[in-house]
Amino acid sequence: MGYVLAADQYGKAETRLVRIYRDAAAHQIRDLNVSTCLRGEFADAYLHGDQASVLPTDSQKNTAYAFALEHGVTDIETYALALARHFADEVEPVRGARVDVDEYQWERVQVAGKAHPHAFVRAGQEVRTTSVTVEGRASEQRAWVLSGLADLVLLKSTGSEFAGFLHDRYTTLAETHDRVLATSLTARWRYVCTDGDWNARYASIRSVLIEQFAMVHSRALQQSLWEMGRAILAAHEDVAEIRLSAPNKHHYLVDLSPFGLANGGEVFHADDRPYGLIQCAVQRDDAPPAGPSWQAPGSFAG
Amino acid sequence: MGYVLAADQYGKAETRLVRIYRDAAAHQIRDLNVSTCLRGEFADAYLHGDQASVLPTDSQKNTAYAFALEHGVTDIETYALALARHFADEVEPVRGARVDVDEYQWERVQVAGKAHPHAFVRAGQEVRTTSVTVEGRASEQRAWVLSGLADLVLLKSTGSEFAGFLHDRYTTLAETHDRVLATSLTARWRYVCTDGDWNARYASIRSVLIEQFAMVHSRALQQSLWEMGRAILAAHEDVAEIRLSAPNKHHYLVDLSPFGLANGGEVFHADDRPYGLIQCAVQRDDAPPAGPSWQAPGSFAG
Amino acid sequence: MGYVLAADQYGKAETRLVRIYRDAAAHQIRDLNVSTCLRGEFADAYLHGDQASVLPTDSQKNTAYAFALEHGVTDIETYALALARHFADEVEPVRGARVDVDEYQWERVQVAGKAHPHAFVRAGQEVRTTSVTVEGRASEQRAWVLSGLADLVLLKSTGSEFAGFLHDRYTTLAETHDRVLATSLTARWRYVCTDGDWNARYASIRSVLIEQFAMVHSRALQQSLWEMGRAILAAHEDVAEIRLSAPNKHHYLVDLSPFGLANGGEVFHADDRPYGLIQCAVQRDDAPPAGPSWQAPGSFAG
Amino acid sequence: MGYVLAADQYGKAETRLVRIYRDAAAHQIRDLNVSTCLRGEFADAYLHGDQASVLPTDSQKNTAYAFALEHGVTDIETYALALARHFADEVEPVRGARVDVDEYQWERVQVAGKAHPHAFVRAGQEVRTTSVTVEGRASEQRAWVLSGLADLVLLKSTGSEFAGFLHDRYTTLAETHDRVLATSLTARWRYVCTDGDWNARYASIRSVLIEQFAMVHSRALQQSLWEMGRAILAAHEDVAEIRLSAPNKHHYLVDLSPFGLANGGEVFHADDRPYGLIQCAVQRDDAPPAGPSWQAPGSFAG
Repeated sequence: MGYVLAADQYGKAETRLVRIYRDAAAHQIRDLNVSTCLRGEFADAYLHGDQASVLPTDSQKNTAYAFALEHGVTDIETYALALARHFADEVEPVRGARVDVDEYQWERVQVAGKAHPHAFVRAGQEVRTTSVTVEGRASEQRAWVLSGLADLVLLKSTGSEFAGFLHDRYTTLAETHDRVLATSLTARWRYVCTDGDWNARYASIRSVLIEQFAMVHSRALQQSLWEMGRAILAAHEDVAEIRLSAPNKHHYLVDLSPFGLANGGEVFHADDRPYGLIQCAVQRDDAPPAGPSWQAPGSFAG
Repeated sequence: MGYVLAADQYGKAETRLVRIYRDAAAHQIRDLNVSTCLRGEFADAYLHGDQASVLPTDSQKNTAYAFALEHGVTDIETYALALARHFADEVEPVRGARVDVDEYQWERVQVAGKAHPHAFVRAGQEVRTTSVTVEGRASEQRAWVLSGLADLVLLKSTGSEFAGFLHDRYTTLAETHDRVLATSLTARWRYVCTDGDWNARYASIRSVLIEQFAMVHSRALQQSLWEMGRAILAAHEDVAEIRLSAPNKHHYLVDLSPFGLANGGEVFHADDRPYGLIQCAVQRDDAPPAGPSWQAPGSFAG
Repeated sequence: MGYVLAADQYGKAETRLVRIYRDAAAHQIRDLNVSTCLRGEFADAYLHGDQASVLPTDSQKNTAYAFALEHGVTDIETYALALARHFADEVEPVRGARVDVDEYQWERVQVAGKAHPHAFVRAGQEVRTTSVTVEGRASEQRAWVLSGLADLVLLKSTGSEFAGFLHDRYTTLAETHDRVLATSLTARWRYVCTDGDWNARYASIRSVLIEQFAMVHSRALQQSLWEMGRAILAAHEDVAEIRLSAPNKHHYLVDLSPFGLANGGEVFHADDRPYGLIQCAVQRDDAPPAGPSWQAPGSFAG
Repeated sequence: MGYVLAADQYGKAETRLVRIYRDAAAHQIRDLNVSTCLRGEFADAYLHGDQASVLPTDSQKNTAYAFALEHGVTDIETYALALARHFADEVEPVRGARVDVDEYQWERVQVAGKAHPHAFVRAGQEVRTTSVTVEGRASEQRAWVLSGLADLVLLKSTGSEFAGFLHDRYTTLAETHDRVLATSLTARWRYVCTDGDWNARYASIRSVLIEQFAMVHSRALQQSLWEMGRAILAAHEDVAEIRLSAPNKHHYLVDLSPFGLANGGEVFHADDRPYGLIQCAVQRDDAPPAGPSWQAPGSFAG
């Protein structure tokens, strides 16, 4: 009986990169966190400590910086595709490359009601994300683009119920027809295309997610997620699948009756832990195969 | 030789409280993190384990919730003042009370360009803060109101220099006349008043800070801070003092010359640590004494 | 063309639970973070907002607490198996259950060289983990046990090289034959068994991992990981596979030559980001199939 | 009416520095986070953007690294004193310097029961700290040394009560004569001396704190803190004062009676927020003045 190297990958994680466009009077900025990951013929490094096929993670970092200058960052998807294709095409032992990019949002500072040309303030909490996977080279090459957002914090102060659920011997929860519903949404969707206007798509998908969260009268967070996912597929033919992961950030009504006060849904305790975690994938009937696109380095060890 | 209890205080920290106003069709929400701290005749609890004078921190939490219903939260300053005065007035052994409130910002969700009545999305990263200190009771009572903001992340892509500085034998830094300037600002200002329109004041001060950061051509972060502070005192007669604490979040120009690329201020590495930390207090000539207002529980043990 | 609910799961995450054994004079404590996740016939909750098949996450939390009393927590694996089997066996719509448990380590306080019976201090930083998946019921039931550790921070001050690597046009890294090697290890291994002495296994595997990290003269972190994994399989017949994920926490030699000082591997800058990320899976030739065991809720949305 | 620069200081925060001693077969490591802060004649930088008196924070970082080589780090107090005195003595505009150092603990890896010469594992969670303040130069120079620890997580599974407390109209808490007491202790003590065996002192003080926490039958966390502080002053003539800040990390007994289970102090919910926060300073009758030693840069803006 023997042992095998069943899987392996390596890369440079979290290269923090800011790209400034300063050719016009009004600067533009792109604030990124870039992670690259290579898969291929690297077994000798593990089995024998032989690095002859190993492109240093330091070189990967350099490439991320150089590409930000040479190719620019009009959007994170195009940038990530260029970077992933470079590794797959140009680095001999590489069979596949994955590039994850997070983008932090900034907006222009307003001075006396006018947008300032080179001063910015961080906007919102959510992070725009992309994960591009490229396999093979030349005519054999295939690419998958996932894009998404993380940490989009949403709250409804009414229009949410939770009732009619299954009871077992450990069930003590009371039914409710009016509660606070809050989440910090992570969404990730798989495109069927590899070019086009990524910024417009992102803006549209983000809007639809938020609007659906607002508009759906929620009989459970599950239902809200399904309706959010379905609306994305309805509005975006270029999206094959969307996955939603949503902590149910519990807001408990505080019992103020010991103090002679009636709390009519006005004062809540926002609890930290535990939280419900509701997840679903909504997919087109005829979605093309996902290939390796959902294999994130961050979940390699489960 | 003996030992004395030289100082003591206790309270309930980080009560996470959401107050919803649902009397109008369009709900309003206030999302708070409330910390209360009592000072007074509590030595017996320390010296002898006698709790007869100790109001439980659990009761302080209950009070924070009850006051959010009874008194409401039109703004965090009025709410904190009511809470602090209650402890100072109503709890016999209390000689002074400090109430710290952080407020997280939300904005209404837009659906088809129209504000939704009960759906919200977290806005910005910065936290609005207040720290109210009340001492004594009845006609002897005094109150101090500090307000502020934290984690306001700002960046200028040009309009910042650092040159002409002192050199010693450990100095290797090159001078620069065009750099990225970025910070995550903490500001806290002391009011001379204890009532009025706190929300309008906050909005104005926040705007002035951001505008000054944008407009001042910065020869150093020090200069930016002074100008920001001075502008607040010039615009707000009700502010006696402002303190600013600003990490210099370094953005290093990446050397791309090994790859034949000229990086003209376009690609930067956003470094995590270490960071410069620049701090100053700007005060009116005739500012009234600060009393105990700057003694934060979080800094009790240095 | 239509849309399908391609996958879904839900549960209660991060129930923080402390179990105290107080039947003997010397107490014992188990400090856990428990997450439960159910898969099954829950489509109606998503598609129609119908909760009739949904056991509330609140009930799952209650069950976690109740089982800690009734079944105890001699080790996290036995506890997680009991909990997962309960959901699979007793909750009608459930087809599969996953239970993740993190355990924080404590050691007894020493007083005058003697172990105190009921005072404890948190020990180490690493977290012991398990992830149990159960599918089906009665004679059809199958179970998989992954166990692991996270945040085990290791450092070698010598005995590590990185040389002979691939160069491309973006490579500027110098070769080195003596560097600091540091990581914060995440390891997770799959058992072939579902009972036995889990605590002894964990202690042994942790020791072997640390010893191998120390003993292997490392020509690259890749090689260290492979040798660590191989040693586990060699020492533990009950382990089918182990996955290792190791950030290369870079320690850069500080150039002190401008100050006339020769830094012979004595002063380093411990950098935060970016970091290398090296990952591998080492598996037995004849390992049984992993089934759904590696599908962590935390990686659902990639 | 005018505005004044009422206070200012600046420095380099969080320089992450590892010092390795490799002259003996068994290496030793010191893993530090160093922050320097200068006070003095820096007004022109704020008021006029003139940096002529400003030693760059980059130079301060270089000095921290260079001193780690030249002066070594036998202990953080001696290192911090050397660094602070250097700034006060050698940098003309400096009137006072504060150096804060955090040290992370490591222990040697054991291989087959024997300590390995150059492999280490992070030990414990707590951080050893020092804060040195130096003012003036030559014969006028004065120095203060605070040392401490942070994040020392302690728990007693019995031997803790909370009863006989003050009731007001918001009090609902039940009395208890047997509860779990847990905290994450921050302690900081002021020495009366500026040399000696700092490592031995630290080890002793840490032990006494932990032992007292264990041994005192606690009628309230207040009492435990006082007894811990008093014991330090009794055991250490070189300590003038100690300040203790202790979150009461609540462990709530879970009500399992709905499931027919009697929970006799065996299953607890470890809650995150809110938490009690109990603080006190214990001081010698004849303690010398603390001077500026408690003015931490981290609390500058309250």
